[in-house]
Amino acid sequence: MKEKILNEAERLFWKYGVRTITMDDIARRLAISKKTIYQYFTDKEDIVYQVVNYHIEHEMIECTRLIDQSMNPLEEMLMISDLMRRNADMVNPSLLMDVQRYYPKAWDAFLQHKEGRIITDIKANLQRGVDQGLYRTDIDLETMARLRVELIQLGFDDRAFPNNKDVMTTQDQLLHLFLRGILSEQGFTVYNTLKNKEYNLTAYENK
Amino acid sequence: MKEKILNEAERLFWKYGVRTITMDDIARRLAISKKTIYQYFTDKEDIVYQVVNYHIEHEMIECTRLIDQSMNPLEEMLMISDLMRRNADMVNPSLLMDVQRYYPKAWDAFLQHKEGRIITDIKANLQRGVDQGLYRTDIDLETMARLRVELIQLGFDDRAFPNNKDVMTTQDQLLHLFLRGILSEQGFTVYNTLKNKEYNLTAYENK
Repeated sequence: MKEKILNEAERLFWKYGVRTITMDDIARRLAISKKTIYQYFTDKEDIVYQVVNYHIEHEMIECTRLIDQSMNPLEEMLMISDLMRRNADMVNPSLLMDVQRYYPKAWDAFLQHKEGRIITDIKANLQRGVDQGLYRTDIDLETMARLRVELIQLGFDDRAFPNNKDVMTTQDQLLHLFLRGILSEQGFTVYNTLKNKEYNLTAYENK
Repeated sequence: MKEKILNEAERLFWKYGVRTITMDDIARRLAISKKTIYQYFTDKEDIVYQVVNYHIEHEMIECTRLIDQSMNPLEEMLMISDLMRRNADMVNPSLLMDVQRYYPKAWDAFLQHKEGRIITDIKANLQRGVDQGLYRTDIDLETMARLRVELIQLGFDDRAFPNNKDVMTTQDQLLHLFLRGILSEQGFTVYNTLKNKEYNLTAYENK
């Protein structure tokens, strides 16, 4: 039951944003009583917190699968971004900003994940890319790994980009600027063969 | 006298940071009484505010001069960044963050300047670069102009880059990532002839 609640809460948060959805909405959608929800979660803040952790866990499994499938670090970056784009199509654009502003505990879980795992993974990707001659040798790995994460957050930030009509177009602009910015000459050749490739990745929803 | 106070206050803020410097420090350095300062400024917040405006004004004059001197939009970007780097060598790294955190009125002046002028100028640069075939035709000008400003701010942000040993190395990494990210193939040829060129620009201090 707990997993069922988490799944439904996540779906509702993603679709309608985290602020509009109440405990009543979740209970109604699952045709259960609010009392049942309170057996597993202390309050809405707790649900948001656990949904974020649940999401992170599944995203990690998904990313590991992609890393195994990809031919090289550059394709890995493109595949993960493609998955992210497909997931984000279903996401209310204000989700990330709302969690940051109104759910400090859940945001903190995300920040810890960012520090502990995402940055490490991107740094490993960059190192492999440098080793394989795809990325420039004069990039600072730590700075660039952190920058990639900052760019993803920035792409969702409507204060930085009030012109944002479509979050994913902005994310695409930022991703390709980043990739072109780190590529070596050899990397560009590989990039040109990959950049328009369509990956038939399953969106997160159908996990 | 007002200009003398602004000059000295700016020098002290840049060198020691904006929080540590008191009205007493400024008066002592100029060998004037605090009463004299209060003839021109209501309080320290007012000095910070006016220093920011005074700085912006001079920076604009400086940038216009560089734009006139540069051969093309790419060189313009490099020259302005070079000037910024020379200026920043004399700047206490916490300056921008401190103004943001503790002097909302001055920060607001900076934000307005950012919206009203910096983004417009960068956008014009990008448009010229696209027209001259130096930058890619598929960049979104508004997004990229805003991104360039965000990157400069990010480079000063020790929360985004706690690994920041030297702010200017980070700024350099971000600048060259950005430029490489927007370059066309033709642009890369020009970039390679320019990227290591030394500009003998006068630092802001000696204006």
